[in-house]
Amino acid sequence: MTVSYRLSEIAERLGGRVLGRAETRISQVATLEAAKPEHISFLTNSKYRAKLDLTRAGAVILGEADAEATGLPRIISDNPYAYFARVSALLNPMPEVKPGIDPGAFIGPGAKIDASASIAAAAVIGAGATIGAHSVIGSGCHIGENVVVGSNARFYPRVVVYHGCVIGDNLIAHAGAVIGSDGFGHAMDQGRWVKIPQIGRVVIGNDVEIGANTTIDRGALDDTVIEDGVKLDNQIQIAHNVRIGAHTAIAGCVGIAGSTTIGKYCLIGGSAGILGHLQIADHVEIAAFTLIGKSIREPGSYAGIFPFSRTDEWRKTAAQLRHLDELAHKIKSLQQEIEELRGANK
Amino acid sequence: MTVSYRLSEIAERLGGRVLGRAETRISQVATLEAAKPEHISFLTNSKYRAKLDLTRAGAVILGEADAEATGLPRIISDNPYAYFARVSALLNPMPEVKPGIDPGAFIGPGAKIDASASIAAAAVIGAGATIGAHSVIGSGCHIGENVVVGSNARFYPRVVVYHGCVIGDNLIAHAGAVIGSDGFGHAMDQGRWVKIPQIGRVVIGNDVEIGANTTIDRGALDDTVIEDGVKLDNQIQIAHNVRIGAHTAIAGCVGIAGSTTIGKYCLIGGSAGILGHLQIADHVEIAAFTLIGKSIREPGSYAGIFPFSRTDEWRKTAAQLRHLDELAHKIKSLQQEIEELRGANK
Amino acid sequence: MTVSYRLSEIAERLGGRVLGRAETRISQVATLEAAKPEHISFLTNSKYRAKLDLTRAGAVILGEADAEATGLPRIISDNPYAYFARVSALLNPMPEVKPGIDPGAFIGPGAKIDASASIAAAAVIGAGATIGAHSVIGSGCHIGENVVVGSNARFYPRVVVYHGCVIGDNLIAHAGAVIGSDGFGHAMDQGRWVKIPQIGRVVIGNDVEIGANTTIDRGALDDTVIEDGVKLDNQIQIAHNVRIGAHTAIAGCVGIAGSTTIGKYCLIGGSAGILGHLQIADHVEIAAFTLIGKSIREPGSYAGIFPFSRTDEWRKTAAQLRHLDELAHKIKSLQQEIEELRGANK
Repeated sequence: MTVSYRLSEIAERLGGRVLGRAETRISQVATLEAAKPEHISFLTNSKYRAKLDLTRAGAVILGEADAEATGLPRIISDNPYAYFARVSALLNPMPEVKPGIDPGAFIGPGAKIDASASIAAAAVIGAGATIGAHSVIGSGCHIGENVVVGSNARFYPRVVVYHGCVIGDNLIAHAGAVIGSDGFGHAMDQGRWVKIPQIGRVVIGNDVEIGANTTIDRGALDDTVIEDGVKLDNQIQIAHNVRIGAHTAIAGCVGIAGSTTIGKYCLIGGSAGILGHLQIADHVEIAAFTLIGKSIREPGSYAGIFPFSRTDEWRKTAAQLRHLDELAHKIKSLQQEIEELRGANK
Repeated sequence: MTVSYRLSEIAERLGGRVLGRAETRISQVATLEAAKPEHISFLTNSKYRAKLDLTRAGAVILGEADAEATGLPRIISDNPYAYFARVSALLNPMPEVKPGIDPGAFIGPGAKIDASASIAAAAVIGAGATIGAHSVIGSGCHIGENVVVGSNARFYPRVVVYHGCVIGDNLIAHAGAVIGSDGFGHAMDQGRWVKIPQIGRVVIGNDVEIGANTTIDRGALDDTVIEDGVKLDNQIQIAHNVRIGAHTAIAGCVGIAGSTTIGKYCLIGGSAGILGHLQIADHVEIAAFTLIGKSIREPGSYAGIFPFSRTDEWRKTAAQLRHLDELAHKIKSLQQEIEELRGANK
Repeated sequence: MTVSYRLSEIAERLGGRVLGRAETRISQVATLEAAKPEHISFLTNSKYRAKLDLTRAGAVILGEADAEATGLPRIISDNPYAYFARVSALLNPMPEVKPGIDPGAFIGPGAKIDASASIAAAAVIGAGATIGAHSVIGSGCHIGENVVVGSNARFYPRVVVYHGCVIGDNLIAHAGAVIGSDGFGHAMDQGRWVKIPQIGRVVIGNDVEIGANTTIDRGALDDTVIEDGVKLDNQIQIAHNVRIGAHTAIAGCVGIAGSTTIGKYCLIGGSAGILGHLQIADHVEIAAFTLIGKSIREPGSYAGIFPFSRTDEWRKTAAQLRHLDELAHKIKSLQQEIEELRGANK
């Protein structure tokens, strides 16, 4: 990688105010600890100001409050972390996409593939599917029949999209993701499960990212919906008919059961779970490892985690926990006894 | 889709009693809320009878108890939900399978593929494998050496079956499922792990469904067994030498550790876990997010979930929980003190 | 499989002391319960000695303490379980690898593939990638650009390695594993997430095993590191910039959040979780289903699991748990009241 920019050139493109030597040339981003003179770093929390004295970075990105905390060449931004993300994207552009269909790809009849799109070897594009401009379908992907993919989508290898799903622009889907598999629906009848056909779709908005090996089931009757700007980490399971509101971010290994609706701008911690048929308001934050078993109507932060300890201590706690109801009743009867003693003492 | 049926035709095929206009023609299933006149809907719980007055459905499926709850054309069944599932299957038949082997598939020497089976592009069938009648192997699947697949199996794209596994009839395996990977077995020796070869197989009965990205490990010495009619949702992990009893249904993200035996007709909630070497009786229901750490000998419903709350409240609870053993001891000493006070008061 | 060995031949290769008929010929390993005369079995715990009287095994592997517990032909080892693992590997050798590149594989320009390596059909080797001696790349694998794979690696089908990752010798990677996908990093800016380019790599040492559908994200700036001898079960999620110490073993479905460092020789139970930016010491054992929310500085065993019970009992416990803080305050005020009563009684 030989891309490099002067601070002045960066500020021209991305905004912000340059202080110090504006001709400083940088070629990569790095943490304050690891940075070398050709790197630019960043500080998001004034608490760590002391690190500025130790860094070997050639330049730093700072908030207004820290503008004078160093003499290093610097760019001042009101959101240094987002600014850093944009500088990094500038210095680390996605590899250029070679438009065209690899001869080792399999294209179904009636598929409409934009001339600027790229289809890799061993990828399968189903009959009647549409692939938008500048979209990249990685090796071994399977895009089902009549799927519609917008523009600038990037499918890493081995992503599977089942038939009929609809995907907006700028999707990033990581390897092993599965979109549109059957929801889990069976009716018990005389000792046998009868499968309920899953005839809905998955509909995904614009600017969505889907992590590696994450699964999103198609709807049973209506659609499963992922709104614009949703970010999903790896190994998430989203059941049928879930709706995830715009710009909600979900960490790895979360499971969301069927027909639950999650609001906009929610943050859901890793390995959390949400039961089915619930409503989660906008701006709700859910801690890692927490099971949400009721609807949440109010924005705010929610948690339910068993605190860990040394195993011997945990054993004692767990043993008492089984008797918590008894303990509560004992306390009640102690209260009564004290009342009686008080009466007797009068 | 232009399939449509009269209610009378449906009842001829699937049983049930038609009330109202038996010539009513329907072409799709829908919820009571979303249904249009060409749709049939269903009511499984009399509690929601009021919805019948508001639906625009052309017909409904009802239980005996609700037979007269509407004047709409209707079919009466003793299991409306299963009846609905069957009507949906009638109206939404699986796409017809084109028998034959795609020229882009890779077939190993000695593989026996029924002439009615379908093998998609980029699929690999290992040496000596058997694929039964009307089975469909999706694009990019890998069916290992000497695997036996029964009839009417449907492998969605990118399913991997390791060598030597045996699969019954009517399997549905969703994208990314892995069957027969090595169990997790290592012996520690002088600071190094020594791998224990996993020489068992996975043996799967008839009528099993396996969700997207679910993994089932092969046995260490004996086999891992999935009995008839088992339904597995997405992202489930089943370790080596587990046995899952017939008609048990397991929701997404569940993990089952090695050598555990689960009974028949169990229901296991999402993200639950079951430790290894346990026995779970038939007809056991396990709540979502619950870890089962001991064998369960009695049918019934079991749970162990930390209730969630606002994070500040949870913090208080978690802090006290760490002192639960102390609290229990305090209660004990309070009881003694009260006894003493009582004695003194006599 | 027609391999068979005399006990004397086994001891020559693997060490240990033969007692009883050293010419006994065995061809397979089995549990004490399932063994037949042509099998060798093992006992790791003297507690189960009685099983030796019932087994039909032709020979057994025993520790010194049990050397005289049976008259069966036997091999005495100071680590019978590891010895058994080695005997099993001897009797169940990996299928021989046919060196060479399948004509159905796709090889990028500049890829360096050792002549003894094996590349299966539908596999993709990216431009500039290196595949070491005797390594096996299964069908449908995707090895990204400039990836370096050491010798004797075994990739089962459909493993994806993103560009630039580095992998040592003797890797075993099971089907569906994803190595090097983007870490989950986004900066919020004016109501939109800005993606933070993930420019680190995944660097994997020697003798590592990675389970089916496990995901390991590449680093944001620096690398994600998996040290020598680490064993990962299925469906594990390892976030960006995590470091896992040598010879640590992690059971299925575990999630480890970003920038956490785990020590050497740790054992982590299934479905456990570890939050981000933590330090876990060497020789730490974490129970299944436990969330680690703080750094652990001392070796030892840690747990935090809500004990399960019948659902009706759990409901009572959960209800009281919500009032645990109140209960603690009640106990405090009871103590005060008793103090007062005591004072009044003086």
